[in-house]
Amino acid sequence: MPPDHAWGIEAWRQRARARLPRIVFDYLDGGAEAEIALADNRTALDRLSLLPRVLRDVSRPDPATDLLGFRSSMPVAIAPTGINGLLWPDGDLALAAAAAGAGVAFALSTASNASIDRVARHGGTPPWFQLYITERTLADRLVDLADAAACPVLMLTVDVPVGGLRPRDRRNGFGLPLRWTPRLVADLVRHPRWTWSMRAGTPAFENLNLALGDADPTRQAGLLARNMDASFAWEDLAALRRRWPRKLVVKGILHADDARRALDLGVDGIVVSNHGGRQLDGAPATATVLPEIAAAVGGRMTLLVDGGIRRGEDVLKLLALGADGVLLGRATLYGLAAAGQAGVAAVLESLRDDLLRGMTLSGAADVGAVKALELRPRRT
Amino acid sequence: MPPDHAWGIEAWRQRARARLPRIVFDYLDGGAEAEIALADNRTALDRLSLLPRVLRDVSRPDPATDLLGFRSSMPVAIAPTGINGLLWPDGDLALAAAAAGAGVAFALSTASNASIDRVARHGGTPPWFQLYITERTLADRLVDLADAAACPVLMLTVDVPVGGLRPRDRRNGFGLPLRWTPRLVADLVRHPRWTWSMRAGTPAFENLNLALGDADPTRQAGLLARNMDASFAWEDLAALRRRWPRKLVVKGILHADDARRALDLGVDGIVVSNHGGRQLDGAPATATVLPEIAAAVGGRMTLLVDGGIRRGEDVLKLLALGADGVLLGRATLYGLAAAGQAGVAAVLESLRDDLLRGMTLSGAADVGAVKALELRPRRT
Amino acid sequence: MPPDHAWGIEAWRQRARARLPRIVFDYLDGGAEAEIALADNRTALDRLSLLPRVLRDVSRPDPATDLLGFRSSMPVAIAPTGINGLLWPDGDLALAAAAAGAGVAFALSTASNASIDRVARHGGTPPWFQLYITERTLADRLVDLADAAACPVLMLTVDVPVGGLRPRDRRNGFGLPLRWTPRLVADLVRHPRWTWSMRAGTPAFENLNLALGDADPTRQAGLLARNMDASFAWEDLAALRRRWPRKLVVKGILHADDARRALDLGVDGIVVSNHGGRQLDGAPATATVLPEIAAAVGGRMTLLVDGGIRRGEDVLKLLALGADGVLLGRATLYGLAAAGQAGVAAVLESLRDDLLRGMTLSGAADVGAVKALELRPRRT
Amino acid sequence: MPPDHAWGIEAWRQRARARLPRIVFDYLDGGAEAEIALADNRTALDRLSLLPRVLRDVSRPDPATDLLGFRSSMPVAIAPTGINGLLWPDGDLALAAAAAGAGVAFALSTASNASIDRVARHGGTPPWFQLYITERTLADRLVDLADAAACPVLMLTVDVPVGGLRPRDRRNGFGLPLRWTPRLVADLVRHPRWTWSMRAGTPAFENLNLALGDADPTRQAGLLARNMDASFAWEDLAALRRRWPRKLVVKGILHADDARRALDLGVDGIVVSNHGGRQLDGAPATATVLPEIAAAVGGRMTLLVDGGIRRGEDVLKLLALGADGVLLGRATLYGLAAAGQAGVAAVLESLRDDLLRGMTLSGAADVGAVKALELRPRRT
Repeated sequence: MPPDHAWGIEAWRQRARARLPRIVFDYLDGGAEAEIALADNRTALDRLSLLPRVLRDVSRPDPATDLLGFRSSMPVAIAPTGINGLLWPDGDLALAAAAAGAGVAFALSTASNASIDRVARHGGTPPWFQLYITERTLADRLVDLADAAACPVLMLTVDVPVGGLRPRDRRNGFGLPLRWTPRLVADLVRHPRWTWSMRAGTPAFENLNLALGDADPTRQAGLLARNMDASFAWEDLAALRRRWPRKLVVKGILHADDARRALDLGVDGIVVSNHGGRQLDGAPATATVLPEIAAAVGGRMTLLVDGGIRRGEDVLKLLALGADGVLLGRATLYGLAAAGQAGVAAVLESLRDDLLRGMTLSGAADVGAVKALELRPRRT
Repeated sequence: MPPDHAWGIEAWRQRARARLPRIVFDYLDGGAEAEIALADNRTALDRLSLLPRVLRDVSRPDPATDLLGFRSSMPVAIAPTGINGLLWPDGDLALAAAAAGAGVAFALSTASNASIDRVARHGGTPPWFQLYITERTLADRLVDLADAAACPVLMLTVDVPVGGLRPRDRRNGFGLPLRWTPRLVADLVRHPRWTWSMRAGTPAFENLNLALGDADPTRQAGLLARNMDASFAWEDLAALRRRWPRKLVVKGILHADDARRALDLGVDGIVVSNHGGRQLDGAPATATVLPEIAAAVGGRMTLLVDGGIRRGEDVLKLLALGADGVLLGRATLYGLAAAGQAGVAAVLESLRDDLLRGMTLSGAADVGAVKALELRPRRT
Repeated sequence: MPPDHAWGIEAWRQRARARLPRIVFDYLDGGAEAEIALADNRTALDRLSLLPRVLRDVSRPDPATDLLGFRSSMPVAIAPTGINGLLWPDGDLALAAAAAGAGVAFALSTASNASIDRVARHGGTPPWFQLYITERTLADRLVDLADAAACPVLMLTVDVPVGGLRPRDRRNGFGLPLRWTPRLVADLVRHPRWTWSMRAGTPAFENLNLALGDADPTRQAGLLARNMDASFAWEDLAALRRRWPRKLVVKGILHADDARRALDLGVDGIVVSNHGGRQLDGAPATATVLPEIAAAVGGRMTLLVDGGIRRGEDVLKLLALGADGVLLGRATLYGLAAAGQAGVAAVLESLRDDLLRGMTLSGAADVGAVKALELRPRRT
Repeated sequence: MPPDHAWGIEAWRQRARARLPRIVFDYLDGGAEAEIALADNRTALDRLSLLPRVLRDVSRPDPATDLLGFRSSMPVAIAPTGINGLLWPDGDLALAAAAAGAGVAFALSTASNASIDRVARHGGTPPWFQLYITERTLADRLVDLADAAACPVLMLTVDVPVGGLRPRDRRNGFGLPLRWTPRLVADLVRHPRWTWSMRAGTPAFENLNLALGDADPTRQAGLLARNMDASFAWEDLAALRRRWPRKLVVKGILHADDARRALDLGVDGIVVSNHGGRQLDGAPATATVLPEIAAAVGGRMTLLVDGGIRRGEDVLKLLALGADGVLLGRATLYGLAAAGQAGVAAVLESLRDDLLRGMTLSGAADVGAVKALELRPRRT
């Protein structure tokens, strides 16, 4: 697909690339090591075909569905991602507002730049809250904050016991706060719109500030990068399950046995995820392992999935493979980086159009019908 | 295959590209979204090999066959396609006449620019008539017209409950009537032969005019694009079956269960089709699903297929996979766009030569022998 | 593999390309239609790997074997190919002499430029004789000539009931005698060594002359191109079997049932061949179908194979798949076209070196051990 | 992966390419014939994905393991490679010292440039000693030298009954001593750092010198190239087993039956290897055959593997396929060629970092857990 054919989310990606300095775009767009998992997420989707059904009444296709108690306008939510404030001033608020406008849930990251409370006020409802396992006391305080804010879903990320190695970031010298080098200056000069928007400086990590009583963003970034607690294990999850009163989701599962164990511990849902190809580069594409995980736990817990979703058809395929819904990470961030809240809203609207068209063309009038669609591998 | 090696239909494609403005060529040549289904139609064919048989008398290979009561000179018919008048003045008549000359059937589209009667007179026989499901009353009137003209086959297209998203058309601003822009003017100036041939203006939709009693082509184009009736379902097909007295074919089936259901309703044939990759981009290649559909209904109804047919060997492969015949869409339109009726005739003759050579080289003296040929996947 | 890395047969191919006019090189190098079968012959070989065995005494690897009664120095013979005289003056004699020098059999084509007798005298032994099925009376006379010359093997080609469509030849205007065009003149001027070597004119077809009592090469070329007898069938083969007193081989079989039928008729061997990708472009790679054919008839008749053999390892793989020996078509012709008899000898010597090294590295000291080697598909 | 993204071992490869003359780099980097086995080693690894496990305590990942009695800091050893002195002065000593520093074993080649004793003194411990099967008396003397030096492991290479054909070396005219040609001079001038480092001349083969009582490197190089004893067979291995008092390893096995036979003879371990794609180009990727060999002998002897290892994940995958450890050939040599001992140390440290990160991200806290990880093929 030549650039001038791009439509939908890929077109927003190109707009994001135009506005962002390379150092920021690469952080957003890149993956771990040789970026094989990153590419495989997409390849695995493209190599699947979907058998459309015909002569069904699809005059009123309805993608609405329930996701973890949230009545969602479509089987889509916005994934928790860190430092959204680096893409657009108060990026978390823009995402939350656009999500609210589109009727989908928004998950706020531990590493967000806006506090849970600010997001709840701005978005009109408390966000889902994502928790990184850092120092235990810090994690405890973050859970308290989420509980106090009545976040309906706590999403525990389990695929970051340590940060992935990301060659683009290494080459660019990416780190927070950005380090002044001639290369960075040249990069900033070539992207004046972004540079002007960031003139107030690198955004702070508000949730971490609140949890730590500390406002030094450098320390927090280091804390995130260095102080993940890799000893957090199943018994700790059991304790968290006992403690957290509302929906609990585990994000970053790729093995059916781990999904089963989470189910046994009373977890409400999982996200089948390889962290967008940013952690273990040897990890499988999510579409590859989704069917075996769905066979193990599908129907007994909420099954979310992310990784490479750029088109409405991707959502249809993942639902047909067994998911209940998908998370959008880079997709909505491209919109955010290009045009703030309006960009996010446009991405969501484009995806909704895609989904409606795809449901109509597939003869699937509602989410249940989508899940019953059949797939065939391409090129066999 | 470098351009200067092109032969047969691919060579006609290149001639069509030279004569047509880009905006028109892209409409003809392009597909939906990322054009994956479009490409997969061809890949799936190329990845199959055909085991030739030897030492059979192939001195008089005969590709003649019966297709829906039509004694066809080869297992090929011309697919219904809209706005053929945009490729060549009175393109529908040119196609009909070339089809008659070659002894193959021609299917006239709802969105044709020539009326059924004009085509019947010019081609010497009533065409097969293709029906889009638009507003019910309009569809009824179109069926009446086809019945009055004694069209022997009514072909109901079921894979367009809504139009596909086609990025090339979106980029080019394609729509009817063409909108004057500097880009269009530049395009027209570079393709003066086509421009001169269209000096009378965008052709009208004669069948729609007759059905509507209305001659405003703008309204009709919009009607086609916006007013598909996506509520048309199996019970409506049953009603149509009761109403239509001659052969009824359903075009756009990709799932064996849908084929079985059509058979149960008394439909005479189906076209296994993904609409040339122009609708659901996630749809499978037709060659991929044809065997399972043939296993379900083959021999009990007429099984037609289209999608990416550019060579005689493609026809042999599809028949060996279970089809009774194939429809040519873009293939004959490349000939039409390049040279009118003479181009269509040349494409059909080239394909016939190809078929005869392929049958001879495969040791298959007639269509029955072709259907008995065996296939092997490539690269396994 | 960049050109400057080429070794062995590929290096000879490049030398042939340098010496031959494009019109002749393309005739030699090209295949039918989209050249898919041509490419697949190689791909199918490259996608197989061979499991070497270790700690066997391979200090004296011996590739000698019996092929149809010929004590061959290696499991290789030179395939029959037409108009070798267009590559090098008296090319048939050069091939026969080089084959004799290397201890391998040489098959002379019906369309050769040297008579059976001249080849027998020059090579020191009567060649295998290949028979095209043209007009029956002509074929009868050719069989008489081969019988009179005591050719030990008659090889009947059954995959040319009609000529393949070869786009390179079509583009170049290839035909015999060459037609003078400005393009041909330019081609000849750029390849003066070849042009000077052909100053006596297009070589005659000596066997056809003798059979016809006619020395007009134009007529014969036309006869070959147009007068194949596509009615020749199994009963005709049975008659030929009764008539021909020595070894009879059928060349061009790709289906196990056809191999079985040939065996039942008393045929001594077959060549699994798609005619080097020059006939049915949809045909499978020979390595793809060889195992099923070997399972059907292996051990009960001589199983030869050709198609894309460029390396010693290709020979090892094909033997491990079930062949008793291979035919070299283009491989030895590249040597011939580049340097005449010395080039053919060099190609055969290079292949022998390759084979010896490959046998040593595979732990296979003789042909029987090669046939017992195991294969694995690559990339699965 | 564009060059400026390279990290880890690939970055060291690029530094090595910058420092080495092309003739030396190609010797190091290249493979046999069409370099298909070389590429397939990597492809086979990249096409596997690894299912990470979550919520296990991976706060103290420990890659330490026992390899043939050596308490190794990670499941990695340095493979025996010849003429390391051509990459860096006293390259064998640099490798030995870096290995000792990193806590991994170092295997010294028969074709090394430093004697066993010098390496033992410099590295602080006797190396593993690799034996080529050359003239029997010479091999006997080499075994005596290794025994006298108390080398704990004797590694017999069985995949070089004859040298592979390496097109890059052939094109470059590579041979020892280097032959002066204008091309070589130009190559040396462009790589002055290497040239200056080699001003003392081509390094001698010290082990061969000691075994032969002969100091002419030319004779030895020829001896290695020409005098492999291809008659060495299983009974000779049995004799060697009786003679050698410590661990005996056979390097170069790709067939499960050969692995089983080595086990039956009392061999302590094998290296599943295709000699880095430098011998039989038709050989399978080691990752392809490792599972069947592990099924045959895994757990009953030490299973090592090499071939294309460039990343920590490769090690994880090979262990998950059944290996106990891996050998690094080119990987550490890139470091050596770029920066001597410091480069080797950096490569080993980089790989260790990779391994620790990979184990953490995979939820595998020790080598046993790594071996229990599950794999999935990509793109199926």
